[in-house]
Amino acid sequence: MSRYFSRKYSELEPYTPGEQPQNMERLIKLNTNESPFPPSEKSLRYARENTRSLNLYSDPNCVALTKKIAETYCVDPDMVLATNGSDEILNFAFMAFTDKDNPALFADITYGFYPVFAQLNGTPFETIPLKDDFSLCIDDYTGRKGTVFIANPNAPTGMALPKSEIERLVAQDPDRVVVVDEAYVDFGGESCVDLTMRYPNILVCQTFSKSRSFAGGRLGYGIGSKDLIADLNTIKYSTNPYNINSMTAAMGVGILDDQGYYSANCRTIMENRVYTTEELRNLGFTVLDSKANFIFMSSNRIDGEDYYIELKKRGIIVRHFNKARLSNWCRVSIGTRESMEAYIKATRDILGEVV
Amino acid sequence: MSRYFSRKYSELEPYTPGEQPQNMERLIKLNTNESPFPPSEKSLRYARENTRSLNLYSDPNCVALTKKIAETYCVDPDMVLATNGSDEILNFAFMAFTDKDNPALFADITYGFYPVFAQLNGTPFETIPLKDDFSLCIDDYTGRKGTVFIANPNAPTGMALPKSEIERLVAQDPDRVVVVDEAYVDFGGESCVDLTMRYPNILVCQTFSKSRSFAGGRLGYGIGSKDLIADLNTIKYSTNPYNINSMTAAMGVGILDDQGYYSANCRTIMENRVYTTEELRNLGFTVLDSKANFIFMSSNRIDGEDYYIELKKRGIIVRHFNKARLSNWCRVSIGTRESMEAYIKATRDILGEVV
Repeated sequence: MSRYFSRKYSELEPYTPGEQPQNMERLIKLNTNESPFPPSEKSLRYARENTRSLNLYSDPNCVALTKKIAETYCVDPDMVLATNGSDEILNFAFMAFTDKDNPALFADITYGFYPVFAQLNGTPFETIPLKDDFSLCIDDYTGRKGTVFIANPNAPTGMALPKSEIERLVAQDPDRVVVVDEAYVDFGGESCVDLTMRYPNILVCQTFSKSRSFAGGRLGYGIGSKDLIADLNTIKYSTNPYNINSMTAAMGVGILDDQGYYSANCRTIMENRVYTTEELRNLGFTVLDSKANFIFMSSNRIDGEDYYIELKKRGIIVRHFNKARLSNWCRVSIGTRESMEAYIKATRDILGEVV
Repeated sequence: MSRYFSRKYSELEPYTPGEQPQNMERLIKLNTNESPFPPSEKSLRYARENTRSLNLYSDPNCVALTKKIAETYCVDPDMVLATNGSDEILNFAFMAFTDKDNPALFADITYGFYPVFAQLNGTPFETIPLKDDFSLCIDDYTGRKGTVFIANPNAPTGMALPKSEIERLVAQDPDRVVVVDEAYVDFGGESCVDLTMRYPNILVCQTFSKSRSFAGGRLGYGIGSKDLIADLNTIKYSTNPYNINSMTAAMGVGILDDQGYYSANCRTIMENRVYTTEELRNLGFTVLDSKANFIFMSSNRIDGEDYYIELKKRGIIVRHFNKARLSNWCRVSIGTRESMEAYIKATRDILGEVV
């Protein structure tokens, strides 16, 4: 850090994104939970048709997109805030609803960005260990003071809580906000969006990056009570009022206008998840029950980091976390059937099994 | 604000963007300093050709775009950080280089977002009055402690300082950072980019929103010493690593590959600025000498807000600021010759002159 850098960030450790290799040919990329399917032609047309007036600012209120998201989830438009990826809505939530008097609470094993957001915003935080089987126990959060962040399904485990458990937490203490990060909910999880109609203290965050094949477009959103969204808008208009570019906003509408295509892709991913999980279990891997577009697994037969390295040698990139409790595990995104077959083949090869 | 909103923001007053009317037909929009010219066909192709792989995350390092910006300005790529509009690089600079021990210093009349960024980040700030003629005196900043933010050319005045004056400030105190916001520099100002090669304590911020017809794409950047850019990258990777979507990053390269088109548009805007300034002065207006794509003017014959309202009735939207020292002034973006002729015609009409 330079001598000019504010000392308030002296302890800040930035987030490390998954590798984004520039030369993708002959690589199978299963490391950042992207969709293997391109956006639909119909939704792409919305972006392309919106390039003409790019000399004008994008709509800071994102009226058309916000309305479309609201319609999709049967909530009022003023219960929705669209953001530059869901990282932005999560950061806004840390900014708005945590501070030195109001710490952040989240699991020890969850989205690695939460502690970074807390540090960035000078917020104290407490990490609450998942159980030995990586399950999250809601009772560990009740009775503690602070704003709760729960990824549901969780990353990198893929394990999901039922909505009733989240509701129990939200209802138990109306004085604190519960943020539910539903980045992966479309692959079999149970969404809490309808709770936002009944509780003033829940914010649900979702993204177009996973089930909607739009990671490159950068689009996320939050759904919550009008009051919470108004607070988050205060942050947005004090940070970057034109946070979403016109092409992305237009294509977001296009994607929601073509839900059939994206829902079918989610079903395919879930089928490929079943296939991959079964094959790995047959090879002796421990594979957690996933409701996400990735699986989390380990094996007594090979160390997690070694497995990651061996797969990479064979042109398959997965994610390994150098972190306590996780070092023997790898997270593998679910791609096309063809990719998953190649991945299983490579795994057999690594284990010395007859291919 | 909701009862959940952090008290640290209790004084926060968000920025108010200029009006973005949704129904633009028959309106002449001269209120947000956009370019009246669409992006070139050549640069648009770059965005359209990059829609295929939108299911993959954008490159968090923005390698191709960063390299292209670096080549354009003859600096090293690690002296460049691309951001989601120049508002993002400005906010990052407030985050990184100001804090409670290191206040922000800026003019009383300048880009209205600076005090918002300061409040957002809990940074004390001092506003230093421009002279009565709206000129900025560098000697008002020398000898004061704090990080300086100077818009050059300034907004909403359009007045510019020579590079030598900025250099004097940068050289005078190597212990503090000087941020030069050059959003409007391509319309006749003198850029300080080359100072970044010689001084470790200057950050130059620019944008694609004005001279490059890409306000809707949201693209800005900072150029500074490697150490300053490394600090700003620490902020970026702790905020939103994938801050720029793939379409915008690709089109940014396309725009810089087609500079001839955009430079010609800047010359046209400067010609139209001369035309508009002369016509207004002939009508008795005071018009400041502008080096930007807008002019700032007042008249003894009509109050600033009344003038704004009368223009709006005639389908022409300009910007009026309800702020001390500015209430009798209006800021008018420079559009096409046709728009400026219509604007002058409307002004004559308002003043009761024979049209």
